[in-house]
Amino acid sequence: MIIIMKMGASPQEIDSVVQRVESLGFQTHLSQGEERTIVGVIGDERPVDKDSLGRMRGVERIVPILRPFKLASRDFQPNDTVFQLNGHSIGGQKVIVIAGPCAVESREQILETAYAVREAGAHLLRGGAFKPRTSPYSFQGLGEEGLDYLAEAREATGLAIVTEVMAPEQVALVANYADVLQIGTRNMQNYALLHAVGESGKPVLLKRGMMSTIEELLMSAEYILSHGNRRVMLCERGIRTFETYTRNTLDINAVPVLKELTHLPVVVDPSHATGKWHLVSAASKAAVAAGADGLIIEVHPNPELAMSDGAQSLRPTRFAELMDQLRPVAEAVSRTI
Amino acid sequence: MIIIMKMGASPQEIDSVVQRVESLGFQTHLSQGEERTIVGVIGDERPVDKDSLGRMRGVERIVPILRPFKLASRDFQPNDTVFQLNGHSIGGQKVIVIAGPCAVESREQILETAYAVREAGAHLLRGGAFKPRTSPYSFQGLGEEGLDYLAEAREATGLAIVTEVMAPEQVALVANYADVLQIGTRNMQNYALLHAVGESGKPVLLKRGMMSTIEELLMSAEYILSHGNRRVMLCERGIRTFETYTRNTLDINAVPVLKELTHLPVVVDPSHATGKWHLVSAASKAAVAAGADGLIIEVHPNPELAMSDGAQSLRPTRFAELMDQLRPVAEAVSRTI
Amino acid sequence: MIIIMKMGASPQEIDSVVQRVESLGFQTHLSQGEERTIVGVIGDERPVDKDSLGRMRGVERIVPILRPFKLASRDFQPNDTVFQLNGHSIGGQKVIVIAGPCAVESREQILETAYAVREAGAHLLRGGAFKPRTSPYSFQGLGEEGLDYLAEAREATGLAIVTEVMAPEQVALVANYADVLQIGTRNMQNYALLHAVGESGKPVLLKRGMMSTIEELLMSAEYILSHGNRRVMLCERGIRTFETYTRNTLDINAVPVLKELTHLPVVVDPSHATGKWHLVSAASKAAVAAGADGLIIEVHPNPELAMSDGAQSLRPTRFAELMDQLRPVAEAVSRTI
Amino acid sequence: MIIIMKMGASPQEIDSVVQRVESLGFQTHLSQGEERTIVGVIGDERPVDKDSLGRMRGVERIVPILRPFKLASRDFQPNDTVFQLNGHSIGGQKVIVIAGPCAVESREQILETAYAVREAGAHLLRGGAFKPRTSPYSFQGLGEEGLDYLAEAREATGLAIVTEVMAPEQVALVANYADVLQIGTRNMQNYALLHAVGESGKPVLLKRGMMSTIEELLMSAEYILSHGNRRVMLCERGIRTFETYTRNTLDINAVPVLKELTHLPVVVDPSHATGKWHLVSAASKAAVAAGADGLIIEVHPNPELAMSDGAQSLRPTRFAELMDQLRPVAEAVSRTI
Repeated sequence: MIIIMKMGASPQEIDSVVQRVESLGFQTHLSQGEERTIVGVIGDERPVDKDSLGRMRGVERIVPILRPFKLASRDFQPNDTVFQLNGHSIGGQKVIVIAGPCAVESREQILETAYAVREAGAHLLRGGAFKPRTSPYSFQGLGEEGLDYLAEAREATGLAIVTEVMAPEQVALVANYADVLQIGTRNMQNYALLHAVGESGKPVLLKRGMMSTIEELLMSAEYILSHGNRRVMLCERGIRTFETYTRNTLDINAVPVLKELTHLPVVVDPSHATGKWHLVSAASKAAVAAGADGLIIEVHPNPELAMSDGAQSLRPTRFAELMDQLRPVAEAVSRTI
Repeated sequence: MIIIMKMGASPQEIDSVVQRVESLGFQTHLSQGEERTIVGVIGDERPVDKDSLGRMRGVERIVPILRPFKLASRDFQPNDTVFQLNGHSIGGQKVIVIAGPCAVESREQILETAYAVREAGAHLLRGGAFKPRTSPYSFQGLGEEGLDYLAEAREATGLAIVTEVMAPEQVALVANYADVLQIGTRNMQNYALLHAVGESGKPVLLKRGMMSTIEELLMSAEYILSHGNRRVMLCERGIRTFETYTRNTLDINAVPVLKELTHLPVVVDPSHATGKWHLVSAASKAAVAAGADGLIIEVHPNPELAMSDGAQSLRPTRFAELMDQLRPVAEAVSRTI
Repeated sequence: MIIIMKMGASPQEIDSVVQRVESLGFQTHLSQGEERTIVGVIGDERPVDKDSLGRMRGVERIVPILRPFKLASRDFQPNDTVFQLNGHSIGGQKVIVIAGPCAVESREQILETAYAVREAGAHLLRGGAFKPRTSPYSFQGLGEEGLDYLAEAREATGLAIVTEVMAPEQVALVANYADVLQIGTRNMQNYALLHAVGESGKPVLLKRGMMSTIEELLMSAEYILSHGNRRVMLCERGIRTFETYTRNTLDINAVPVLKELTHLPVVVDPSHATGKWHLVSAASKAAVAAGADGLIIEVHPNPELAMSDGAQSLRPTRFAELMDQLRPVAEAVSRTI
Repeated sequence: MIIIMKMGASPQEIDSVVQRVESLGFQTHLSQGEERTIVGVIGDERPVDKDSLGRMRGVERIVPILRPFKLASRDFQPNDTVFQLNGHSIGGQKVIVIAGPCAVESREQILETAYAVREAGAHLLRGGAFKPRTSPYSFQGLGEEGLDYLAEAREATGLAIVTEVMAPEQVALVANYADVLQIGTRNMQNYALLHAVGESGKPVLLKRGMMSTIEELLMSAEYILSHGNRRVMLCERGIRTFETYTRNTLDINAVPVLKELTHLPVVVDPSHATGKWHLVSAASKAAVAAGADGLIIEVHPNPELAMSDGAQSLRPTRFAELMDQLRPVAEAVSRTI
């Protein structure tokens, strides 16, 4: 951490800052510029409240040096996190494809989709039983009934299940059925929930908040990791920008940035990141080319009858075509799918 | 709802759309333009999944006509919601001021602040016992101990208490101590939590998500209202934009927009909306001039020692000066404070 | 400027950085942290390309210390810039109101508006003769004919004229007619144009780019100032965000921030900042309360027939009411209007 | 265009709207909903000022039906625009690579780069002679001297030249030297400049404004097309968002969206879209996989000595490696490079 003093800060002001910082257990290092004095702070600054230090008289600005996340960082763990799930290596050389409907709507719907996506080559099945919806008047999911159908689909197809959990008190129930607990974009900073899934030990798919920075995503992962759960996948699912033609803006830069900053696997959700089924193919190819370790794609047997996200869901035949298109792209970047 | 068909949509495609819409219980009305056909849909469209309808063959776009919120709207309730709290009318002619520290840090700190803000004219006391923090390594609040101190401060000063609740299972505990339950910006779309505070019946201060639209804020209020709780205050607390000089961008437009769209009281948080204590005064005056029904302001006896948000907290003397500056502004717009 | 070296940067890498920086004429100051070395650079860093320095081997990040603008800064000129225009002090105790139509549409329209806004108390007349329009098919302004009508309106009413200039080669022509040259939001970083108005010597109203930071606005002002023109007013006119209910988001924080960083007068445009006439009143009051030195407001005798910006233009009677509402707000913050 | 009337609009209000619209030469079509009346407007709505219509009494909202651009649209020209440049087909099956330094700094620098990028397989040479810089104190380019060096580099290597033009009065000069005129991101809505390059007849590379929507980009292209110049390439170069880890956010969705909406070639600039050289490779691969028709990449022989954009420039050896990596990605999507 570096403390930049204001132009004309008095010796007493500089002195109090130095004393305060040293009283917190740090060493300091003064550097006298032409216009300003700079106080270098030596030590692990992460637990310090920089905000408050910045309020001391004569201080202009605090510049953090260390990144605020630790367990999630490549500094802490240089090698990629790879873990096994139902016979697949997550975070390894293979690009993992998770596919299925936005919401589980019926036993038939989820079974039909599960067979179709397995046939096309998907590795995991997604489907929401508890649905966070903007409107209290929209379909909120089938709840435990939906979880039952997902379990049946797993039994039938052998596909592992990814499904969302929305509240700490649901974690035990959902963990009973699911292979991967999904944290949705609106809950990325629901710290009580992060704490709970951290303790559950189940693999987690953590979606980036639509309004969250890459650093905040890593800080939320840090919550889960610091509660003892190391099997976390990060998911870029599009961010909110001024552009309204698409539902969100896929932050494709986030893929190489995350691969550089963290050892955790990075998954892309081209369905939410575009919001339009006819853009999903291009976005999926871009994600694989950029180095994503996985994709999570919405597939529905009858999108025009879907109870949610119909506009961005692929029909099974389109999904199968997409899988065929993705294979050469994966090979072009030395991956398989 | 209006369904705009694609240029060149076939008569069969138009026909299926009409049949589908009518099968959902609506009447339709065709309008044949030069390039496109438009299907007008007559009836309450709110429960329909427009996304999926938009996937039907030949459909270009769906244009909703009705706003998606109902109980929160001025159409539903033309007159302002006004409710009593500890002798103060919330949402009435008086501008309500809520003041106190970001976090309750100790018994002394909250008592000292409570006396100071009451002396300066504040109407309610804020202070966090459970703190949502970006980092798992930051101070997370005193928890129930903090609630105890808040209760003691209420006893001592007579000020009603506003404090944050972070998870559904905390609602009962926090409601035991608090007069107003605060939903933080990161939890604006935590639907399980909205559901729980909706059922608790306690007044709620609902903060706008930092990257949520005004409409989404009203939809979240709708969740609380539709679970039976009508005492909801909305809080504009700054949104995230590309500007980084300030912590957030105060969306001052949101004040008159909300007053136009909804009957619920509108509170502004100039502390988070600026992130810098020296901007709080200008932002507070702007909020009152724009028609806000209340302000929520961070005050700390020693900002440079604060465990969070020191940079944006006012000292008690500054807060007292601000209250003096606000009175003439309130009068200039025919309000009192 | 501070150069933060990567964790594990080699002594040779640190050495080359030091040599490079010293070869540019700076002194350096090394600070050895626990994980990283920091190179403090002493001297005026403004002309250095930090980007390229940041590419040297072993460098993690460059932290600028000095703000990049100079002539525009309070450090350079602590006292407010105040200049006279047609008997009014711009930047002084009085809040200046500039009013008129988006575009000059006819002789009658501009004369009628000019008389009406003068009657209501406006100090300057605005009106566009050259109009930047998103579509090549929209009305592009009357050009020189419009300037003639503006000159006639000035003759008739005594109001000074503010009008936009869109290209360097138009500056001489427009300066012949106008009292203040307006640079529109889309041209804030049109450096050839900034250069030209800098040399023209005419007062300038510089609108913030809808996508520009406060610092970039000040850098654009710096272009004008550094070409010898010191009479520059800055205009906050709303920025682009994810919120779509309003045309733009009025960044009200920018008013106190600019007053703190610069000595130049700060004007707010509540018409573009909201895009809806019924929000103009609240936004105007907020701007005055926050400390703006002026307002620029769109007024049209028949908004529903306007050739541009009808949705955000006030009728003359509404404008007169607004002026009456603004007076007490100005007084409440010790200003007049 | 559809005009949605307010709930409770009176028959007279509806009538005046109908009369007004019909007086503009349109037919109308009334649709009486449960809560609102809707006026369908039949005819080419593009030249109508919707803003002002929206101000008529009783009108709630205007919904445009037609896209505002015409010549740029696939409706107008279904087949891709393909044009020849120096033996290369722009917009065809081959992905075109434009490479070179941000700014021409010296004869040696541009010649060395030109040879290197040609050797690696680039098709055109980029280099700025006139540089738009945020600061008036930064290097502004060599001007005509730079154009001379570019011409020499073309002579020496056979590569066609892409260079920026910043003002209408420079167009003739720059067009004398350049093969492609580049419009920079800050000038995307500099209409005088768009007009001038439209008349020049030279191919244009139009960069998307960093906070402009896709539709606004197409409207700016429409300016050039409507002034008679059909050889326009569109360039996605990253947009401004709240994410600060990267310089901009590459809007990869824009690639398939533009390919769908327009027949014009689409180029991606991974250098500005990331701002960091080590992210350029992933962004380039993503762009090709998503369907881009070209890339424009910054290459500098000594990025750490560059006078601008050093942080995002590739060394020639890295650029050659990238070209090798791009070839299989191009093949995977049935393109060559």
